[in-house]
Amino acid sequence: MAQPATISPTPLLKDELDIVIPTIRNLDFLEMWRPFFLPYHLIIVQDGDPSKTIKVPAGFDYELYNRNDINKILGPKASCISFKDSACRCFGYMVSKKKYIYTIDDDCFVAKDPSGKDINALEQHIKNLLSPSTPFFFNTLYDPYRAGADFVRGYPFSLREGVPTAVSHGLWLNIPDYDAPTQLVKPLERNTRYVDAIMTITKGTLFPMCGMNLAFNRELIGPAMYFGLMGDGQPIGRYDDMWAGWCTKVICDHLGLGVKSGLPYIWHSKASNPFVNLKKEYKGIYWQEELIPFFQSVTLPKDCSTVQKCYIELSKQVKEKLGKVDEYFNKLADAMVTWIEAWDELNPTGAKSAELFNAGK
Amino acid sequence: MAQPATISPTPLLKDELDIVIPTIRNLDFLEMWRPFFLPYHLIIVQDGDPSKTIKVPAGFDYELYNRNDINKILGPKASCISFKDSACRCFGYMVSKKKYIYTIDDDCFVAKDPSGKDINALEQHIKNLLSPSTPFFFNTLYDPYRAGADFVRGYPFSLREGVPTAVSHGLWLNIPDYDAPTQLVKPLERNTRYVDAIMTITKGTLFPMCGMNLAFNRELIGPAMYFGLMGDGQPIGRYDDMWAGWCTKVICDHLGLGVKSGLPYIWHSKASNPFVNLKKEYKGIYWQEELIPFFQSVTLPKDCSTVQKCYIELSKQVKEKLGKVDEYFNKLADAMVTWIEAWDELNPTGAKSAELFNAGK
Repeated sequence: MAQPATISPTPLLKDELDIVIPTIRNLDFLEMWRPFFLPYHLIIVQDGDPSKTIKVPAGFDYELYNRNDINKILGPKASCISFKDSACRCFGYMVSKKKYIYTIDDDCFVAKDPSGKDINALEQHIKNLLSPSTPFFFNTLYDPYRAGADFVRGYPFSLREGVPTAVSHGLWLNIPDYDAPTQLVKPLERNTRYVDAIMTITKGTLFPMCGMNLAFNRELIGPAMYFGLMGDGQPIGRYDDMWAGWCTKVICDHLGLGVKSGLPYIWHSKASNPFVNLKKEYKGIYWQEELIPFFQSVTLPKDCSTVQKCYIELSKQVKEKLGKVDEYFNKLADAMVTWIEAWDELNPTGAKSAELFNAGK
Repeated sequence: MAQPATISPTPLLKDELDIVIPTIRNLDFLEMWRPFFLPYHLIIVQDGDPSKTIKVPAGFDYELYNRNDINKILGPKASCISFKDSACRCFGYMVSKKKYIYTIDDDCFVAKDPSGKDINALEQHIKNLLSPSTPFFFNTLYDPYRAGADFVRGYPFSLREGVPTAVSHGLWLNIPDYDAPTQLVKPLERNTRYVDAIMTITKGTLFPMCGMNLAFNRELIGPAMYFGLMGDGQPIGRYDDMWAGWCTKVICDHLGLGVKSGLPYIWHSKASNPFVNLKKEYKGIYWQEELIPFFQSVTLPKDCSTVQKCYIELSKQVKEKLGKVDEYFNKLADAMVTWIEAWDELNPTGAKSAELFNAGK
């Protein structure tokens, strides 16, 4: 629909996007990403032992935060940032001053498209974020804003303008993002299917958001991208991105923002240990049977007009409805509030601009 | 998830599936489909002048109905079957005695997959119909029942069994299914993107169902597949499949049945005339702005436990809510009732088996 006659190059957004990488090791994986990431600023969140030195390949522009830095910057509010879990990455979202975030795991490499060409994952995420989403009606030819595609017959014209895109969820070739039981059952399964599609996840539908290869508009949805309490001292792991995804989707639906999934692919190099994963996940596996109905039925009042207000309201409902599932959710609900307080402290104009955005709609 | 260790061949269902083809011309297009369609029974619904002879290539097993036949079989109830419009195809669904229907337009040819292999569209539809759907939660790796795919981390285990699939909506390479305004604006656009995915259209989401390349489980959803009043004597055309799709989706959502879209592709050979299409469509283009909110907000009472009961209830709501949009919808609502009466007359045990199916759930 909206393709101009000439194809304009995708804006790099190099001064408007930070790449957030949680890690415990040297970042050699960046060598493969050099042609694509070099123009951007990196925010590295070092997990685990802060006395360890993380080596970053030469030439990259980065800032690095370890646990001591997080404690110093947030003070007592640092309690909301997970330790010994990649959930710590959300600290990077908070300290960024940019409009867009791309986050990627350090075991993710450049994938190839079916023609053998290296996929510039970041460029595709930027395209996804800069074109609208269509959450109110499914388009059978997928993203109608891509070159060569459009809205099909029967798609209401009033819905063709779409809504702003808040989240772009990318996928993985090679090692698929399976839970521990599926890993155990299918240790050799590899994802080799390149599906050439981007689609909006429609309003009212939840999805499992993976944090491995994820981009979002920080101005539109940043404060909802809290990765929860995981890892050290917590009864659960590997649900950080899921939690963020459920909260984010519910808030995007409420605020009329779009969430896309599909392209781009990255190459996920190694499967994590399924036995270790099972230990981290097993509570999540049964808790999620109560979490999903909760998120499917959440409604946010109309006066929740900013992401922050939505998130605080959500934290109340988490306490009220999920506190009885396990004491953990009371702790998590409190951490959600702390997270928003910390966010607003580091982003003093953030709340205001989000309010303005919604008032202007 | 559910792949056995050895890959079993897709059942042909040759005695359980009819291929329904609406046409006004000789069916030379079947030559290309011969390797795939020959084992099946065809139901040809001849539109337009009944005195014209339609030639069917030798060797195919078929029955053919022209307007005189329809009038003779249905008597006064024949008024619910459109004339001079491919909407007449739904008569074929009604006279079939099989469990599954595949319907295809006579300008649709065998497409090739990216490896250059001819696509057996019917075989893929059968696979889609015989594997479950997942309408309650989006799986980011698409159809979890395909070989090489599964449910991803964070997908609730209680939802992994899925629900029975009622509809398989296939797509089109070459000429995309655009409305007249889009055809006029983009006369040269061709769909060349082969998206290797099948997905469930989630609960609560409507989609534009195209009748060009469509399969369904007649036992589960047949009576909802009414293609409305189009063509001769009607103020509208080219909304027959859309109408059927909206009604079907709402009823599938209510009854807990699945609707899939994606593979297989057919090769759509020629664009219809956009000026003629505009004349047929223009009322639909503004009516649909009221139809979509109507279908998005329809709720069916719990005692609507069969497709027939759902459809009669829907006809009442159409009259009540859409009658004021245009007198046409009162006529359509009456035709919906006539359609169900005719269906039950020709399928005396149909209502009963649908009831049993739901009682057993």
